[in-house]
Parts: sequence; C-alpha cells; structure tokens
Amino acid sequence: MTQERGFEAVKTSTARVRPAAGSVGTVATQFLDLPEPIRLDCGQVLHPVRVAYETYGTLAPARDNVILVCHALSGDAHAAGFSPSPAESSTRDGFRAEERDAAAGRGLGWWDGMIGPGKAFDTNRFFVVSSNLLGGCRGTTGPSSINPATGRPYGSDFPVITVSDMVRVERALLDQLGIERLAAVAGGSLGGMQALEWAVTYPDQVDAIVPIASTHALQPQGVAWNAIARNAITADPDWQGGHYHGTGRAPNAGMGVARMLGHMTYLSAVSVGTKFGRRLQFAEDIRYLLTEPEFEVENYLRHQAESFVKRFDANTYLYTSRALSYFDLARQYGAGRLADAVRGMSARTLLIAFSSDWLYPPSGSEELAAALRANGKHVELHVIDAPYGHDCFLLEEARQTPMIQDFLAP
Amino acid sequence: MTQERGFEAVKTSTARVRPAAGSVGTVATQFLDLPEPIRLDCGQVLHPVRVAYETYGTLAPARDNVILVCHALSGDAHAAGFSPSPAESSTRDGFRAEERDAAAGRGLGWWDGMIGPGKAFDTNRFFVVSSNLLGGCRGTTGPSSINPATGRPYGSDFPVITVSDMVRVERALLDQLGIERLAAVAGGSLGGMQALEWAVTYPDQVDAIVPIASTHALQPQGVAWNAIARNAITADPDWQGGHYHGTGRAPNAGMGVARMLGHMTYLSAVSVGTKFGRRLQFAEDIRYLLTEPEFEVENYLRHQAESFVKRFDANTYLYTSRALSYFDLARQYGAGRLADAVRGMSARTLLIAFSSDWLYPPSGSEELAAALRANGKHVELHVIDAPYGHDCFLLEEARQTPMIQDFLAP
Repeated sequence: MTQERGFEAVKTSTARVRPAAGSVGTVATQFLDLPEPIRLDCGQVLHPVRVAYETYGTLAPARDNVILVCHALSGDAHAAGFSPSPAESSTRDGFRAEERDAAAGRGLGWWDGMIGPGKAFDTNRFFVVSSNLLGGCRGTTGPSSINPATGRPYGSDFPVITVSDMVRVERALLDQLGIERLAAVAGGSLGGMQALEWAVTYPDQVDAIVPIASTHALQPQGVAWNAIARNAITADPDWQGGHYHGTGRAPNAGMGVARMLGHMTYLSAVSVGTKFGRRLQFAEDIRYLLTEPEFEVENYLRHQAESFVKRFDANTYLYTSRALSYFDLARQYGAGRLADAVRGMSARTLLIAFSSDWLYPPSGSEELAAALRANGKHVELHVIDAPYGHDCFLLEEARQTPMIQDFLAP
Repeated sequence: MTQERGFEAVKTSTARVRPAAGSVGTVATQFLDLPEPIRLDCGQVLHPVRVAYETYGTLAPARDNVILVCHALSGDAHAAGFSPSPAESSTRDGFRAEERDAAAGRGLGWWDGMIGPGKAFDTNRFFVVSSNLLGGCRGTTGPSSINPATGRPYGSDFPVITVSDMVRVERALLDQLGIERLAAVAGGSLGGMQALEWAVTYPDQVDAIVPIASTHALQPQGVAWNAIARNAITADPDWQGGHYHGTGRAPNAGMGVARMLGHMTYLSAVSVGTKFGRRLQFAEDIRYLLTEPEFEVENYLRHQAESFVKRFDANTYLYTSRALSYFDLARQYGAGRLADAVRGMSARTLLIAFSSDWLYPPSGSEELAAALRANGKHVELHVIDAPYGHDCFLLEEARQTPMIQDFLAP
C-alpha cells in the first residue's frame, strides 16, 4: 500500500491487524493572540489576530511528531475528542462573540473518527494541532471580531483573505507553540487546499501532506455554486451590507438557502436517492401545499438550514467561500502551469478522492498527481469508490484510515 | 431509424437529404377564455381561465394533423416564428398584467429551430399548437391573474396545481379550437411531462408523444434543487407571503438566486468549464472583492438573474416548480409501479435524452422505456451524446431533428 501508485485508483483490501482505536477524551479549545501583525495577500495588515486551537497527543522532545489538521468551510478547531456542552445562549442577535462561538463547538470533534489513539492520525505517536482558520467564527479572528479601528465588529470591513493568509496564521500559531517542522499537514476540501499551500510555500518545513477530497483549484462549476451561495446571503436585506452585528437582525434566511445549496453539492445524486428517494413528508399522498415541505428531502434541507444558521456566522461563510474559490496553485505559483507551481514542493503527498464527489471530482486530484509525478515527486492517489459525494471525507473514515496509516508509517 | 430500438442509446448518422428549413414568419399570441370551469386535482375549481396560445401551419380539413407543443418551466406560448417587440414597460412593480406579459414574449420563439417548414415539427405538414401553461405568467391564467373573489391578483391564493391540471386546460383549449385528436404531443423537460400525462390520461386521443430531456418522475436530487430555488424566493421578504402584487416590491433578489441555481442545474460541469473555466472578470488577477464578481461565471450568473426577473413572475416559478416536482406517473397512475401506470397508453413514444443531462438523466428515460417495453408498447429511446446538460434540448436541434422527422414520418 505504501508504494507509489501514481494517479491510478487503488482499492484497499488490507487485512492487516490494527490496534483498537480510542478517543482523545475530553478536550478544551485554547486561544492564542499572535504577537505580530499578519500581512495579507490583499496588502492589508491584520492586528490583533487571535487563534482558537486544540491539540491532541504529546509533543515529542524533538518536536518532530506534529501533524496540523486543517478544517473545511464550516468546521472549527474542535476536530477530535469530546467538548463539554456549554449553556446555549438564549438570545441571538446575529453577533456571536468569539469565545461563545468557540464554546458552541461542543460534542464530538468533526474528525473524531480519524484522530485519536490507534486512528488514522494516531495520537499515540503524533501531536495533532487543529486550529480554527483565519476569518472563522469559532474563536479565530474573523469578520465578527472587533475591528480595533472602530471598536465594533469588522463585518464586511474585514479584509478579503486567501488560503495563503490562512496558512500564514497557522505558521504564526505554530511559531508560538515552538513548532518549526510538520510531520504532516492534513485536511479535507478547503482543509486540503491549506495542506497544499503549506507544501508549496514552506517546502522545507513540511514532510508530508494529506489533501483529501480536495483540489489544486476549484472547478468552474464549484466556483459557480459558491458564488450563488454567497449571493443568497448578500441578497438577504438582513445582511445589511455586511454590518448586521448589533442590529438584532442577521441574514438567516439567506444563510439557510446558502446552506441548503452547499449541502446538496456535498451529496451525490445516488446518496440523495438512497436516503430520501421521492418519499413524501405526510401520509401517502401530496397535500397541495405551496410552501410547506411535501417531500422528506425538503424537510431535511430546512432542518439543515435551521441548525446551521444557529452555529455559523454569515460573513465567515462569505469570506471562506471566497478564499476557497480563489485558491489556484497554478495561477498563484506557476503563472498558469500547475507543474511549475508544484516544482519546489518536497513533501510526500497522499491524495484521497472519492468516485461520487462531483464538487471536488477525482479528476482534480488526478491532475495534481500528474503534475507532481512530472516533477518526480512522491505522490500516492487513492480514488475510493463510495456513493456519498463530497461528504465521503467525513463518512468514509474506515477506508481512509489504512491508507493514511500506511502513508505515515515510520 | 424508425424501428423500435428499446432503451439502447442510438447515435444518428443519417445522410438522408432533407428539405431546407424555413420560418413560420411573424406570429401573434392569441387568447381564449375557456367557457367551463377547470376542476383541479386539489379539489378546487378555477374560473375563469384564459389561455394564451399560438398556432403554426394549417389545420387539415380532417383535423388530423395537430401537434401540441408544451413548454418547460420558464417558457411561454411563443414557441416559433418572430413576434414583434413591444415597447418595454418603463415601470415595474412586481405585478405584470397577462397581456403585457404575453407581449413580452417577443423575438424568436423558444423552439424556433424545431418548428417550421421542413423542421422537426414540420409546419408544411402539421398544424402546431403551443400554449402557455396553467399557472403561467405569459397570458394564461396564473397567480398574477385577477382572483374574481377579491378583484385583486391571486398571489399565493392561487390553488396549487399539477401537470394533470395543466393538461386539462390544454384539453379544454383544443376543444374550443375544434380539435379532438392529436397526431403528437411534444415537449422538453416539464413539457415532456405534459406529453406523458396526455398519453396516460387521454390514451384514445394521442397518436404519438415526444418527451425530450424529460422523465416520469423528477429524481430526488432534482426535487431538492427545486425546493431550494423555491425557498430562495419565499425567503425574500419582498415575497410578502405571495401577495407582492401592487405593493411596489417583488422578490427579485430571491428570484435571482433561484434562477442562478436553476440555471446551473441546466448546465453540465463540462459545459461550465468549457464556457467559462476559471477565467477572471478583471484583468489578470483577483481583486480581493467580497461581493463583486471576480470570475466570469459569476458575472454571467448575475446577468442571467437580472434578465430573468424582468420577464418572469416569482409565483409562477413557485407553482410550476411545485407541479413538476409532484409529477410522478407511478404514484399517480400505478400505485407506485411505473409499468402499471403506462399500461393503458396507446401512443407511440419517442424519448430523447442527453448524456450530460444530470437534472433529467438518461436513466429516467431508460426506466420509462423499460416500463413501456414491458407492456409491449412502441417506444424508441435515443440518448444523444452531447455536453450541454439539460439545455441540450434547446441547443441540440440539428441532431434531434432527423430522429423526430423519422418518428413522425407518414
């Protein structure tokens, strides 16, 4: 399994006995204020910058066992273990203080099946760092943070950020933690973009990267879906030009539509069909209702929207969606040529893609693998045949685990 | 080409010489008030009902050369020929009078490449009738029509309608025109659903049907997309519970999002990639703009949205989207079994599907063809290999034409 397979789909059929996997236990999100300003791609300088992060496992004395895990659009620093449930705020006015938002990331971490003792990212061996990305709404500085120039939340005065900017903040966080090198950077979707950015911009500091269900550049259809989701938010009058904080109104309706749309792009036609089919919501037949859900899938989407707007900031959605749409290794580092962009990389690369992922299709990983191979780099690509669409990276943990363990084996 | 091919994809390679195709010339939309109320599936009775329609060609003395053409979600009665451009109304308040809306359907008809002398639906031979569907906003009674009970536009008091109801109105229109039998019913997408409904509910009156890029039941992912588009409209405060007429405000922002979303489902990933790629809107690089278009595809989507809201009524979108999501031959006529639902059909069936149409995928047409074959019916299915997604039915006229001409040959 660990030999290079190029960009050919590899199905795992390992029967190797692996140790029982466990939990990292109860964890708490920590906060760190960066001492230096962050200079952004757009030319602006951001200060202060606070970073929310969690760590799992033990840092080796040689500080050579660190894995950075990067989250996707709607994730946060709470990637593994159990976070005690805080009291829910009973009032909501669209503004969510950093700490309260971070605390809302309760329950099991978003990648708990992948991070822990004996798991894909094995905390018996690795010290795993997971941070909320720049622009986030779960503890790291973002558009809902206080703008020191005004004393009020940035809102849409927050500078437009890029994946490079996110990685700069991650680099600065690790500096503060006394960590110079990374044994690996891993993440799914936008998280995988950050891993790629790390390998290109800090080639001497990253031993390996594991971009999962990700790409070197979002395909045009994905650019369009993201644009439509952002339009749904900014079209909501309660968005108020991005300055909804403290007004008692937030663009929840538009966010709901954005979430429904995004959610559908994370599923496949097959998984929607299997999960819901055309089953009706009520009894045995339609009820001739114009706006109320008639089909189960309609009800499900509304539930998804309602729960999302309670936990996520609309501006963070806009900025993060923008950043992941911008991301384009070839444009940024290769004057349009992907092979040129990855020439300086030295990290070993494990790419995992999923057959039914039409938002981040395997073809993107195949292009990337080809570019790396053209430069003689070590790259493995596994295309897992699974029906759950882009969500596979969160669901197909059991099948990813041996691939990652073998790739990271000493 | 005319023999039954079952549900196997057939590529046309005909070299037969065909006559040069022409135009039906300048046409005018006509209006007809149905004398009898229409009893709807929901139990309500609708009266009065006006129908906007156009005709092309000459009705044979035996009245046996009639083809009914049915339009899709955003279409109208103006299917072929040239309609003179009326003066644009300079004010818009969300309410669009029936006649004005119908007049707005100017320029070339939406299927002009398919209807005319020597074309797929040959007006040298056939008398083609095209009507705006029930619930429409282009001349036929719909939610922007006056509710006789209140003297004001129905808005969301308009009854929820079905494809069956649309077909009942088409049947009533043809009664008034003195037409009993149809040589064929044809249409793409929702138009194809109407053709199927005709063949099932009026088996003795339809000789042939040509459902193109259509289905016996929208697949679950399509149900979801339609639900999200409707949510985008109803989430817009300017929708005002559906009673925006006369308020000076209309849910244009929500309609814009719905149109962007719908439009993306009509294209394929390949066609979006070919047409736009990741090309930037400005100069050579990104501009770090949060809400302004950065990519060409963003700009294109905005333009689509802006032009659509000028010509289409939001409530008509809601009702029509609902009807096409409900449509389910197996549920309606077969107690859940498609083969039972089509047992009584007698029309010959020509199904055309497109390889890249993921909204109305070829699999739906294949299921339908199998059900028809299981009942010993005459059915042809052509799956055209083309990259333009659902829009193929409007774009791939040249390749559909010989299939339709051969199918309709005397």
